[in-house]
Amino acid sequence: MPLPGQLNPPYRVLLGPGPSDVHPRVLGAMAMPLVGHLDPAFLEIMNETQGMLRQALHTQNPLTFPVSATGMAGMETCIVNLIEPGDKMVACVKGYFGQRIAEVATRAGAALTKLERPWGEVFDLNQIRDVLTKVRPKVLAIVHAETSTGAWQPIEDLGKLCHEFDTLLLVDTVTAFGCVPLKLDAWQIDAMYSCSQKGLSCPPGLSPVSFSPRALEAIQKRKTKVQSWYFDVTLLSHYWDADRFYHHTAPITMIYALREGLRLMLEEGLQARWDRHLRNHRALKAALIALGLTYSAAEGHQLPQLNAVRIPAGVDDLAVRKKLLADFGIEVGGGLGDFKGKVWRIGLMGYNSRPNVVLLILAALEQCLQAQGVKINAGAAVAAANRVYGG
Amino acid sequence: MPLPGQLNPPYRVLLGPGPSDVHPRVLGAMAMPLVGHLDPAFLEIMNETQGMLRQALHTQNPLTFPVSATGMAGMETCIVNLIEPGDKMVACVKGYFGQRIAEVATRAGAALTKLERPWGEVFDLNQIRDVLTKVRPKVLAIVHAETSTGAWQPIEDLGKLCHEFDTLLLVDTVTAFGCVPLKLDAWQIDAMYSCSQKGLSCPPGLSPVSFSPRALEAIQKRKTKVQSWYFDVTLLSHYWDADRFYHHTAPITMIYALREGLRLMLEEGLQARWDRHLRNHRALKAALIALGLTYSAAEGHQLPQLNAVRIPAGVDDLAVRKKLLADFGIEVGGGLGDFKGKVWRIGLMGYNSRPNVVLLILAALEQCLQAQGVKINAGAAVAAANRVYGG
Repeated sequence: MPLPGQLNPPYRVLLGPGPSDVHPRVLGAMAMPLVGHLDPAFLEIMNETQGMLRQALHTQNPLTFPVSATGMAGMETCIVNLIEPGDKMVACVKGYFGQRIAEVATRAGAALTKLERPWGEVFDLNQIRDVLTKVRPKVLAIVHAETSTGAWQPIEDLGKLCHEFDTLLLVDTVTAFGCVPLKLDAWQIDAMYSCSQKGLSCPPGLSPVSFSPRALEAIQKRKTKVQSWYFDVTLLSHYWDADRFYHHTAPITMIYALREGLRLMLEEGLQARWDRHLRNHRALKAALIALGLTYSAAEGHQLPQLNAVRIPAGVDDLAVRKKLLADFGIEVGGGLGDFKGKVWRIGLMGYNSRPNVVLLILAALEQCLQAQGVKINAGAAVAAANRVYGG
Repeated sequence: MPLPGQLNPPYRVLLGPGPSDVHPRVLGAMAMPLVGHLDPAFLEIMNETQGMLRQALHTQNPLTFPVSATGMAGMETCIVNLIEPGDKMVACVKGYFGQRIAEVATRAGAALTKLERPWGEVFDLNQIRDVLTKVRPKVLAIVHAETSTGAWQPIEDLGKLCHEFDTLLLVDTVTAFGCVPLKLDAWQIDAMYSCSQKGLSCPPGLSPVSFSPRALEAIQKRKTKVQSWYFDVTLLSHYWDADRFYHHTAPITMIYALREGLRLMLEEGLQARWDRHLRNHRALKAALIALGLTYSAAEGHQLPQLNAVRIPAGVDDLAVRKKLLADFGIEVGGGLGDFKGKVWRIGLMGYNSRPNVVLLILAALEQCLQAQGVKINAGAAVAAANRVYGG
């Protein structure tokens, strides 16, 4: 078999549900040579990264670090550490990733209660209070930004509510972190996981997690060892705290990436970053509406960083996405699970939440819809976006 | 808190037990922009990577792919898939990583038998036959290149032996792959895991694994689900086979790295690569002996890529390693577990198995030993190495 040639990935603009384009400064950081994972210089890099991660998450939690694997590993890390076989847990399911939580929790032996809402909707406080009253679970898990539906779950008051029932609040912030407000301590979140390839504009490969002192206490009270050695937070904490006790070899280059992604985030300022995501979302949304498209999530609960819109009747989902990719190098996401073939998911995350990216996807999408015979007011989309940017 | 400055890792030559220096072409590949993890272009990159991985491992196993996490995750993946709670397993322990296997297996619920040898030694076929006869385990696990002792375990005849007893052979090749001969199919190895940051000269972050049809059959016959969702090979196989069914977001940039690391390995040729590791080891060894140092592993079982030598009496372990790092940017490994403070581990792995690296560490080590008051014949080490290279 002849060897494959030099790596030569095609030009892409990644506007799906993630990964999103990597910031050039992150790629630059990743080109730096390795230092050893126990080198004093690397320990300092770990400290800096953890410090910035806490700042970016608005938390003082000492136990804040990136799991050495992708976002789904962060989900599993949180669940297998908080849950012992037989522990009661509530999973709030309103999309694909809520279902995923339920599946991973079942494997961890949780006595699971699923609280469900139709895809695209969000939960309100009363529903959550009801289930807490009835079940009194050890853990309640909910997705902040549901990647499959584009729905934005309010979570600021959930921690306080959960604590009334002595329940730990676990939040999936995979698609939220770095795009929309997230304040772990003020919102009393006990455990959270995210990823590196969305709001952080790094490649996939790390999953930032954080555990509150309350969550850590629950972990320390476990009667059984965590099933997974790789994801055991009691071991990992000694690698990521002052001991720096050898556990596994940290993915050094990915830590370089995360450090740079966090620097970019904090240089910009968190509020400025959230505002930027909102502004580009407003421009995109005005334009998509001008194209006759509608959001699958309810008004007021639409994620700025992930715009899930219904595919117009008669339009060939795959043909449009193939044309976007082939003619313009643009990737947008198709639907997942219940929404397969029904929605497109347009991500504007981190580095990619920029006016030039918005104008590009609109111009390209207009052409693709026209090719499908959709009657549109030519140029109306770009004009609508420009009105938002103009004033 | 002021933000940390631009990433500026110090100059290093990584001659410990791993990570080893990343090949410049791998860093170049990692600087390429992302494509989506379900992009047709990425699926092709996955195919190419798997094809080369099979070639490099001398195997036809369809189920050959990199786990999206570090080498220790590969160990856990193999164990939690092959073992159901109550299954009999033998762990061959002759160093730190054999112990690690025992620990992970216990967490997976294995009915574990530990077969032990003193650190630095290896097992012979008779011992293995005895334990197989007595225990008749489902799985026997052994470390090919024991990173903690530098001992090289012969494994070519173990698969055949295990299969006489209907036992699956699991081999830890973390420090072996890419440095010493490894032929999965000819040696009838049923499952193996490795890492990216040693013989492959990539950053840490991936763990190549491979499962024989026999191992896959055992996995398919499981009565219980694998505890871990992230490491479940039945799910992962559909992501890495022709289905490309979404499981998690592959660490795209790390796959770029692995692809380039494998290209480098196959361009060079496996036999040429193994010969290169042997030649540089011979030069290093002749020189270390000229310096009066002795190997901790027995003659005939010393790994070319990881030279574990006893620290001479009266020499300050930490002072020497600190001077190597501070004055020359050279990292060598200290001892682990039973060998803490007793050995140095000098790695010559992948890209770093080069004459200029050998000459550098020898010249530096000579100076460090002299600073410790060790009487040495100045220049003798470099001269001994040069004699090996000269003819």
